[in-house]
Amino acid sequence: MLKRTHTCGDLRKENVGQKVTLNGWVKNWRDHGGLIFIDLRDRYGVTQIVFNPQTNHENYEKAQALRSEFVIAVSGTVHVRPEGSANPALSTGEIEVAVDQLEILNPSKTTPFEIKDNIDVKEELKLTYRYLDLRRDELQNNLLLRSRLYSVVRNYMHANRFVEIETPVLMKSTPEGARDFLVPSRNYHGRFYALPQSPQTYKQILMVSGFDRYFQIVKCFRDEDLRKDRQPEFTQIDIEMSFVDENDVMSVSENLVKAIYKEIKNTDIDFDFPRMTYEQALMEYGSDKPDTRFDLKIQHFTSVFESGGFKTFARIAQEGGVVAGLKIADDGSYGRAKIDRLNDRVKSQGGPGLAWFRMNSGNLEGPIVKFLGESEKEELKKQANLQDNDLLFLLGGEKEKTLQILGNLRLHLAEQLGLIDENKDTFLWVVDFPMLEYDEDEKRYAARHHPFTSPQPADMDRLESEPASVRARAYDLVINGNEIAGGSIRIHRRDLQQRVFRMLNISDEEAEHKFGFLMGALEYGAPPHGGIAFGFDRLVMMLTGARSIRDVIAFPKTSSALSLMDGAPSTVSDAQLRELGLIAIKKDN
Amino acid sequence: MLKRTHTCGDLRKENVGQKVTLNGWVKNWRDHGGLIFIDLRDRYGVTQIVFNPQTNHENYEKAQALRSEFVIAVSGTVHVRPEGSANPALSTGEIEVAVDQLEILNPSKTTPFEIKDNIDVKEELKLTYRYLDLRRDELQNNLLLRSRLYSVVRNYMHANRFVEIETPVLMKSTPEGARDFLVPSRNYHGRFYALPQSPQTYKQILMVSGFDRYFQIVKCFRDEDLRKDRQPEFTQIDIEMSFVDENDVMSVSENLVKAIYKEIKNTDIDFDFPRMTYEQALMEYGSDKPDTRFDLKIQHFTSVFESGGFKTFARIAQEGGVVAGLKIADDGSYGRAKIDRLNDRVKSQGGPGLAWFRMNSGNLEGPIVKFLGESEKEELKKQANLQDNDLLFLLGGEKEKTLQILGNLRLHLAEQLGLIDENKDTFLWVVDFPMLEYDEDEKRYAARHHPFTSPQPADMDRLESEPASVRARAYDLVINGNEIAGGSIRIHRRDLQQRVFRMLNISDEEAEHKFGFLMGALEYGAPPHGGIAFGFDRLVMMLTGARSIRDVIAFPKTSSALSLMDGAPSTVSDAQLRELGLIAIKKDN
Repeated sequence: MLKRTHTCGDLRKENVGQKVTLNGWVKNWRDHGGLIFIDLRDRYGVTQIVFNPQTNHENYEKAQALRSEFVIAVSGTVHVRPEGSANPALSTGEIEVAVDQLEILNPSKTTPFEIKDNIDVKEELKLTYRYLDLRRDELQNNLLLRSRLYSVVRNYMHANRFVEIETPVLMKSTPEGARDFLVPSRNYHGRFYALPQSPQTYKQILMVSGFDRYFQIVKCFRDEDLRKDRQPEFTQIDIEMSFVDENDVMSVSENLVKAIYKEIKNTDIDFDFPRMTYEQALMEYGSDKPDTRFDLKIQHFTSVFESGGFKTFARIAQEGGVVAGLKIADDGSYGRAKIDRLNDRVKSQGGPGLAWFRMNSGNLEGPIVKFLGESEKEELKKQANLQDNDLLFLLGGEKEKTLQILGNLRLHLAEQLGLIDENKDTFLWVVDFPMLEYDEDEKRYAARHHPFTSPQPADMDRLESEPASVRARAYDLVINGNEIAGGSIRIHRRDLQQRVFRMLNISDEEAEHKFGFLMGALEYGAPPHGGIAFGFDRLVMMLTGARSIRDVIAFPKTSSALSLMDGAPSTVSDAQLRELGLIAIKKDN
Repeated sequence: MLKRTHTCGDLRKENVGQKVTLNGWVKNWRDHGGLIFIDLRDRYGVTQIVFNPQTNHENYEKAQALRSEFVIAVSGTVHVRPEGSANPALSTGEIEVAVDQLEILNPSKTTPFEIKDNIDVKEELKLTYRYLDLRRDELQNNLLLRSRLYSVVRNYMHANRFVEIETPVLMKSTPEGARDFLVPSRNYHGRFYALPQSPQTYKQILMVSGFDRYFQIVKCFRDEDLRKDRQPEFTQIDIEMSFVDENDVMSVSENLVKAIYKEIKNTDIDFDFPRMTYEQALMEYGSDKPDTRFDLKIQHFTSVFESGGFKTFARIAQEGGVVAGLKIADDGSYGRAKIDRLNDRVKSQGGPGLAWFRMNSGNLEGPIVKFLGESEKEELKKQANLQDNDLLFLLGGEKEKTLQILGNLRLHLAEQLGLIDENKDTFLWVVDFPMLEYDEDEKRYAARHHPFTSPQPADMDRLESEPASVRARAYDLVINGNEIAGGSIRIHRRDLQQRVFRMLNISDEEAEHKFGFLMGALEYGAPPHGGIAFGFDRLVMMLTGARSIRDVIAFPKTSSALSLMDGAPSTVSDAQLRELGLIAIKKDN
């Protein structure tokens, strides 16, 4: 094999006259004025190579047979490109290589799609031929950035005295929230390992062991029906620290993010990240991850309607609900049809009808204006500070749900109105989360973060009497409206852990069965500790601008958790199942 | 909480007079001359703290209640230790902290074993209380070194333009050799993912995709009955490169090892690693991973006995077997009983009786001397270069097996005779492995490395006619007799891959079913490529001197793959199994 002396991204004017060897893929091929020109591609760049029948006819003949994606080795001499044919878009664009030796290392069949960005090809076909899709610049660049990000993160953590420790992949099944992937044991039939949804219990154990500062970039697993931007296996930056409070964890996290933005985007972030309580985030943005790149805050009008003529809103206000809304300046496009579509959207999310008002030459218009008295109208205009051509959308209902729907509407309106500056990054800590959240499916309260999160000291005496009012020592990092990291200060004493399990309706028996080892560990000198986990895939998406999580993972699965390239999951032999003591009941699917 | 201003390893004479706060664990407690002395421990060191009833009686009283492994916070002033009581073994040994504030952050029950090295405690108990065992200096140091090693390896790889890419944990089951761990699919009942035994196929796919240089430090899994120093999940440094031959991969690997020894052990390795063929390793060391820290090579005497009076050896020689042995200088301890034990050892490994000879005042003695003629005796003495008090052990039999038993005996004798210099490190490449090895269990030839390994060009025409004679483009890195890494140049053309599958008795149909996607990828411009994988756990063992793999892994499993700390694997709910379409057949175990 002719072994390369340079990559396809290396050669410059300074190399002119040198004999070089390149290895790479035929990106394209053209016959031009009796010469064959080929763009030769590798990970590092593209170099133009030229076959001239005058200087070497045999090579020229061989080059006729080359096709896209053939792998070749060529030797030749570096020349300056002729006047006017330099390509400034290429780092090698000033030179070309006149080939005098050609070796075909491997031919290629015609690829099922062209190897270039922004082609219109079915996702399924691209995933089946993932090895070809991965040749595209976009995916190459995403994965190269991802590779750098590992390095930046780890170097920051090591420099800050964090110890990198691997936790087990084969662990105990303790489903809490999401479903575990299970791994049958061959030695103990009827018993199973689980793949970690997170290394939570292990990293707490490491604090009990005195490792003081732990981190790991680690694969985690959830057997869930996949929504957009979820994968059954995903990667997180997992961090835990001893003898700390919220501020310590948040400070390390902030500095990590700053280091990332500096190294990857060459952006200096020279300010502290602002903090917002969960309550404020809900009231003003209808979300626990507000996108603060634009304003458009939710405005509240509950008191305006409390005793007024519009009975629906009045009843909601009297029953403890909220009436709240969003005000936009109509750009002229918000006619009846468009407003109807917004209404449909709200309803599809389980919301009530969307009320709306328009200011027209100082007058308030809209379908429910007729129900309102003069003072109500005036109060509404005043509180909302309505100007001509302003549109005000209102919703009334149960507080959390209503505000969340408004939060979604807020994002949608911002997109419609082009309010989002894609070049701006906003960073935000959301704090003071409630401990509990209501699980609609299971009809019970469950831990919003996880059952090891410490309650806030001020709320400790309401654990039993008023659990829904207890706030957690939890914090989420939100960048541009995406939850990038979440963490908490943990419980480090057994008695408190037991009270919290009870608050979560986890019986003492169940707690002992699932988490007995952790409760035991808390009795042997567990230090105060806390931590955080960053969604690594989402961080890469944010830094690359990728629109799908599949574009930042080398071998992703489909939304039904299939790997189309290799056909996993697949059937296995009866012998394999027998060894595991399992019978598989086939159903049609 | 009193938050630390320093760690327990920080304070020096320069800090004398400062007010400081420390957090840590009570390592030990002693009442001495009316003062209470405590060694306070954290990951970074130990600092002596002192409670004086004169200066603060309340603290002194509280300190009476402290016990080993309590977690505390103390504030106080740094003092020089009194004349003669400095402890030069501690980095903080010149100072102590006179406490004026004490906060008990968490008490500790009496630990089931003392937190110190070299205690005589059952392994099971230590694994059950792993969080306490991990507090020991030895395990802390092993894991801290392991953490540094990740960093050294990754920085080396990134600096050498390798791209770090994560490959899937949920992959296709293609058992070949070892057993896969399986993960049942919830969406497709009767279908399973497998956990990777190695990311072999994916890293080859990444070369097809043009990533050129890939690495990953990655968890791999094998569902095998565990031998000493095996774990069901283990870590490897996985490397693959395009457009390379053996020398390129070996060179990158050698330089990686040199960087590791420099950074971790501050040792300069300024020579190229020697290379040895598999054939030579087998003939001289009876092993594919020779420990070359000592000599004691195997000597061959087949021709000596070919036509001689000792019929057993003569027959073996005539039938193509070997008669070979090891010569040691008897240190006076090799009496009949000791030789009998060596014989038992050989037999327990399936060997025949061990023949032995002793030189006594110029005469050859030993049980089979009587069968030998004079010329045979002279020839033996001459060829073995026997001196007085030399002992020569001989075995005869089928070549590979006999030499392997001698190889084991060689290691045992070297240990008995103290021939191994533990402070010496020897590095060796073993090359020119045969493609095939005979699988005793399955009674068939199988790939020694894996089925994607390329045959050597010179042997290509014997693939079908004489498969057992075909050598692979494979190489193993051996350090001090341990296989630390193994790799090969891969097959990059579909036609050759198909021939090799057939040679391995893998039918076209089976090949297509298991590896169709890879064979497909080879048709779309796969570059020549090769790689290697390092056993990361074994590397850490080597660098720390740990005797068990369990001492370099934070949460290891027992030899029956149990996690004693958390009880994994465990039973799961019927609902979980139902969702997976599985019935578990319990058997008594």
